[in-house]
Amino acid sequence: MPPLSRRDLFRSAPLAAVPFLAGRAAGVDPPKPVEFPGMTVRMHEPRNLEMPLTALDGPLTPTDRHFVRSHFAVPKIDAKTWKLRIEGHVETPVEFTLDELKKLTPVSRPVTLECAGNGRIFLVPQVRGLQWAFGGVGTAQWTGVPLAELLDRAKPKAGAADVILVGADKGSITADPASPGPVNFDRGIPIEKARKADTLLAYAMNDADLPAHHGFPLRAVVGGWYGMAAVKWLTRIVVTDKPYQGFWQTFDYSYFTRRDGGLPQLTPVTAVQPKAILASPTGPVAAGKPVRLFGAAWAGENKVGKVDVSVDGGKTWTPATVNPQPDPLAWTFWELDQTFARPGPVPVLARCTDARGNVQPDQRDPDRRSSMINHLVPVELMVK
Amino acid sequence: MPPLSRRDLFRSAPLAAVPFLAGRAAGVDPPKPVEFPGMTVRMHEPRNLEMPLTALDGPLTPTDRHFVRSHFAVPKIDAKTWKLRIEGHVETPVEFTLDELKKLTPVSRPVTLECAGNGRIFLVPQVRGLQWAFGGVGTAQWTGVPLAELLDRAKPKAGAADVILVGADKGSITADPASPGPVNFDRGIPIEKARKADTLLAYAMNDADLPAHHGFPLRAVVGGWYGMAAVKWLTRIVVTDKPYQGFWQTFDYSYFTRRDGGLPQLTPVTAVQPKAILASPTGPVAAGKPVRLFGAAWAGENKVGKVDVSVDGGKTWTPATVNPQPDPLAWTFWELDQTFARPGPVPVLARCTDARGNVQPDQRDPDRRSSMINHLVPVELMVK
Repeated sequence: MPPLSRRDLFRSAPLAAVPFLAGRAAGVDPPKPVEFPGMTVRMHEPRNLEMPLTALDGPLTPTDRHFVRSHFAVPKIDAKTWKLRIEGHVETPVEFTLDELKKLTPVSRPVTLECAGNGRIFLVPQVRGLQWAFGGVGTAQWTGVPLAELLDRAKPKAGAADVILVGADKGSITADPASPGPVNFDRGIPIEKARKADTLLAYAMNDADLPAHHGFPLRAVVGGWYGMAAVKWLTRIVVTDKPYQGFWQTFDYSYFTRRDGGLPQLTPVTAVQPKAILASPTGPVAAGKPVRLFGAAWAGENKVGKVDVSVDGGKTWTPATVNPQPDPLAWTFWELDQTFARPGPVPVLARCTDARGNVQPDQRDPDRRSSMINHLVPVELMVK
Repeated sequence: MPPLSRRDLFRSAPLAAVPFLAGRAAGVDPPKPVEFPGMTVRMHEPRNLEMPLTALDGPLTPTDRHFVRSHFAVPKIDAKTWKLRIEGHVETPVEFTLDELKKLTPVSRPVTLECAGNGRIFLVPQVRGLQWAFGGVGTAQWTGVPLAELLDRAKPKAGAADVILVGADKGSITADPASPGPVNFDRGIPIEKARKADTLLAYAMNDADLPAHHGFPLRAVVGGWYGMAAVKWLTRIVVTDKPYQGFWQTFDYSYFTRRDGGLPQLTPVTAVQPKAILASPTGPVAAGKPVRLFGAAWAGENKVGKVDVSVDGGKTWTPATVNPQPDPLAWTFWELDQTFARPGPVPVLARCTDARGNVQPDQRDPDRRSSMINHLVPVELMVK
């Protein structure tokens, strides 16, 4: 594999100041500006913001370019009185203050988070939910403590099944009158996943305190899983003795698997599926001259195996050069020099295959409902 | 308890001819008449029909007055080649023809079925789903074989969890684009319930072959549970080793229970909740003269304990006279003589309490979503 010419690819990304997210330590919802320079607004209230592809130029996403997915308004949290409580099917319910968590040995690693609905805007016919394009994904440096370490203090009892991460954000599901009464955002994960090094409770993002919109003072980062598991504004963790059946893993963030003789069964969305995206070029390119195609690729709990590119609608594929992943849970970048002979529109396909051979599908599977969207979507480049 | 004056209450209900349901043994969907005399149409295609209250005059509901709830078109079934297959987590997958089932010792009992959405039209704001009023309920004499007996032949393995009843009716859930691909109607019930005498596989209704719209040649009758478990057009029974998570007990026919520290969890709808309805009078009544209030009451897996009536908006309640239940799984009837002193509209409330003390609630609980509707609904009588 030739050395990549994009030498600064793994430089430490400059962490830009975060004007509209800064200084929200008191958890007060910020005033309601109509502009978020540099971000694509997918919902104004609560804030749901997408990273534009033009922001993808390094392994770490600056905080003010990292996508924001919130289900309810930012909850008001006073860091001085805030506590995290671990309870339920445990020997010893425990509580931690923020200071106590920060005194534990910190772990810091880059982890890619992707919204489970990233790419939804490409589903035809349109389905309900936020209409993300390519940029409901980002990679920050997350710093905090492994959930496993806190669980050890609480001592889950024999037969512990799920660990429910409960956020302080709460509201009614107004889009569906057949929803339950007011609910917190929450998510259960199997205790095996909760005990893996993948699962971090983070108080810092890109070496600064979590901004309010990213879950101040503490959020989960469940590496390799879609972002719905990365619960923000954590206040409670409840260990159960049966698989959890919460709203956010049944009605929402769920899909159908065919088991028991082909019968479809509702299944919580978990691991991120392999995906490659083209980040540049985004404008017209010149015929007859080499053009560098460049993008990102990630594969959830598995490593990225390879990225192939097609410029003929999927008839033939050329392997791209793929950077080593900085962390098994972080995306990587790929590039390929390509010369387009003739002017005209060219559909470019980028396809990721993970290290286990799972490959992005050609077609959308309706059993996946409105999540886990990684079928191939051509991007049209104009050759002049 | 004084003897009831309505002496003919437990007469064997005359089974009227069923012109539009008769002769459909080949499973061919009937031609599409626009009229169903005597029934309230809730959906024309597929047929969803409600019993009008005026049809409630005896313990057995005539077949042509029994509510019909179908999710898809009536499947084409040839009784000669039809088989029921029991498979999955069993030692010995087995098949039965209709003749083989009819040779087994038959069981015959009256069982009340109520649609899980019965009463939905009274929910404000309106929710999606069929808009049943009071009559998505009925009691037929069902004849067939206990499911337990067939399961014994198949020998479920240790650890068997659910028994999925699969109908031959199949289609796409067009109302929700985030639904899975085409699905059969099906329903899993815990193996404990499947083994109870409550659960019958019926080939006859009111002493005649099942009509096509009621599931010819075989349907489940799961006594004490809402009708969604009474799967029609049965062809497969699949035993699982884990709780089933099928579409019809997650997205549909489910509600939220608060467990694990008050967190709402999606739960399949199962047992019918206690309910009393007023069937007559349905027209104006005379002031100063005794009027006989009459209606039905049922309580699912429990027996009916008592029925109380209020004519002052729930301030005071008077116990009604309640007939003994003909079968623990069948409704019963109540009556109360009442004299209204002054002309004007009077709201009548009938309230059932089951033998365990569960009582109809005053208010709708939003966690119940669009099913299990048994809060008190006043019926206004006009006194002249």
